[in-house]
Amino acid sequence: MTKSIVNAIRTVPDLREHLAARRADGSSVGFVPTMGALHAGHCALIEAAAASHGEVVVSIFVNPTQFEDAADLERYPRTEQADIEMAIAAGASVCFIPTVDEIYPRGAATTVSVSGGLSNRLEGAERGSSHFDGVATVVTVLLNICQPDAAYFGEKDAQQLLVVRRFVTDLQIPTKIVAVPTVRSADGLALSSRNQRLSDQETVQALAIARALAAAAEAISDGTAGSPEEAETTGRAILDDAGIACEYFEVTSPDTLARAERLDGELLISCAARVGDVRLIDNTTVVANPTREAATARS
Amino acid sequence: MTKSIVNAIRTVPDLREHLAARRADGSSVGFVPTMGALHAGHCALIEAAAASHGEVVVSIFVNPTQFEDAADLERYPRTEQADIEMAIAAGASVCFIPTVDEIYPRGAATTVSVSGGLSNRLEGAERGSSHFDGVATVVTVLLNICQPDAAYFGEKDAQQLLVVRRFVTDLQIPTKIVAVPTVRSADGLALSSRNQRLSDQETVQALAIARALAAAAEAISDGTAGSPEEAETTGRAILDDAGIACEYFEVTSPDTLARAERLDGELLISCAARVGDVRLIDNTTVVANPTREAATARS
Repeated sequence: MTKSIVNAIRTVPDLREHLAARRADGSSVGFVPTMGALHAGHCALIEAAAASHGEVVVSIFVNPTQFEDAADLERYPRTEQADIEMAIAAGASVCFIPTVDEIYPRGAATTVSVSGGLSNRLEGAERGSSHFDGVATVVTVLLNICQPDAAYFGEKDAQQLLVVRRFVTDLQIPTKIVAVPTVRSADGLALSSRNQRLSDQETVQALAIARALAAAAEAISDGTAGSPEEAETTGRAILDDAGIACEYFEVTSPDTLARAERLDGELLISCAARVGDVRLIDNTTVVANPTREAATARS
Repeated sequence: MTKSIVNAIRTVPDLREHLAARRADGSSVGFVPTMGALHAGHCALIEAAAASHGEVVVSIFVNPTQFEDAADLERYPRTEQADIEMAIAAGASVCFIPTVDEIYPRGAATTVSVSGGLSNRLEGAERGSSHFDGVATVVTVLLNICQPDAAYFGEKDAQQLLVVRRFVTDLQIPTKIVAVPTVRSADGLALSSRNQRLSDQETVQALAIARALAAAAEAISDGTAGSPEEAETTGRAILDDAGIACEYFEVTSPDTLARAERLDGELLISCAARVGDVRLIDNTTVVANPTREAATARS
């Protein structure tokens, strides 16, 4: 098996030819889809893929159909050369960097959509329901182009991960979906390409998001919160104190994203907030104190 | 290469295992999706696939999501044992006969849809826009399960063929789509599983559909019709004379299904009509008399 010497591939036929040769060599293929502006969170995905696959493809594609706001798309950071270097250093074999025309053929009219709460709640409610249609469609296209054995997604985008798992299951796409834990700065901020746009003062403010999630989780696990609403109030108060505009802060089922009706079993706490004009999201999971019955059953 | 001795496979893991072994033997895979009730039209698809592929999979799955009418779904003919025998005789290696649960996982919430005229006009207008969502979703699932090198579709379902080509292109599914000409009875009736439900008298009535399409095409090619509307009137009159209820009879672009504004270039003439309570469709293509300019340009 020869190591690939290509760092960037820009067309679908070239990528397919490259991967066919690597598969013929016996390599399995891991895939990490990104919108570029790579940071240590992406590197964790790439490293996880490189640990399991002889060939690791990192796509860099800022997908216009998942931005509801043209200004947000325009502002999205683009740092291609640094991205390629970082991806290769983390273990990528090749970066796939297509144009918009390469991903969406002329006359494209097809949408992949996941109905219900997975698409419509939380991020879907804030960003518009077309956001996850854009995600589902572009990830389907990228998986069909790359045909990887496994694809790697960050737990930071928890709802995206649920949407991807849903349509990959439903459409019976033969790719394993692997979730990788959120990478945080030393003081807890979830890494995001958008963090680049925070001033020093805003970066300090933004730490309140992880603190709020941790406080809500602790209130649930130690029994201080008697209901999901109380845990949410605890978290929101911390955002308020930091002067951050909360879009949502919700305790939900980790599988369906339905609002938690009581504190029982595994729960997902998700938050979106604006720090200055930068929109950030983060989440954590927590297991609610098992009831005495459940604890007895387990012992 | 050993010839497969399995005639029917009912689960996705079994089919994937079977096909992996056949691919390892060097066979390419051709795929013919059907709803069963096979006839000589399906056999033409299977024979075309068998001429190009060492392995030919015929799926038999009456897809509930593409029926807008529960009674129509209920009445759809099911003739499994005869189907298997006919498919194998025509050159199929194996029939894939999944249950509904095998195709749609528990909690399935994903839809593949093609927007615009390809889905909304003609059949989409008559049967409801969800009809082609059902087709696009189930064909995507079947292609992902089977991962064929090529899939075979009949030209009789011209609009379905256009929808399939569109989403296969857009989602970059690595399967070649092959169109196979409509097979007709000796007196011209397009073969359809629904023809089983026609009485003898209705079978004679139904011949008017192909006659109407041929008459409209002739009126276009010989210049008798001065406009698309005149050609449509010619065809509709023949259906009226035969006592058949026409749902649509339209001259359109063969690529976009947009209504033809004038008689120029290649045109698709499509018809849906009810004979008794049986809904039948058929179509033909015709090249309108080239203008003098075009003829000069070509010479």
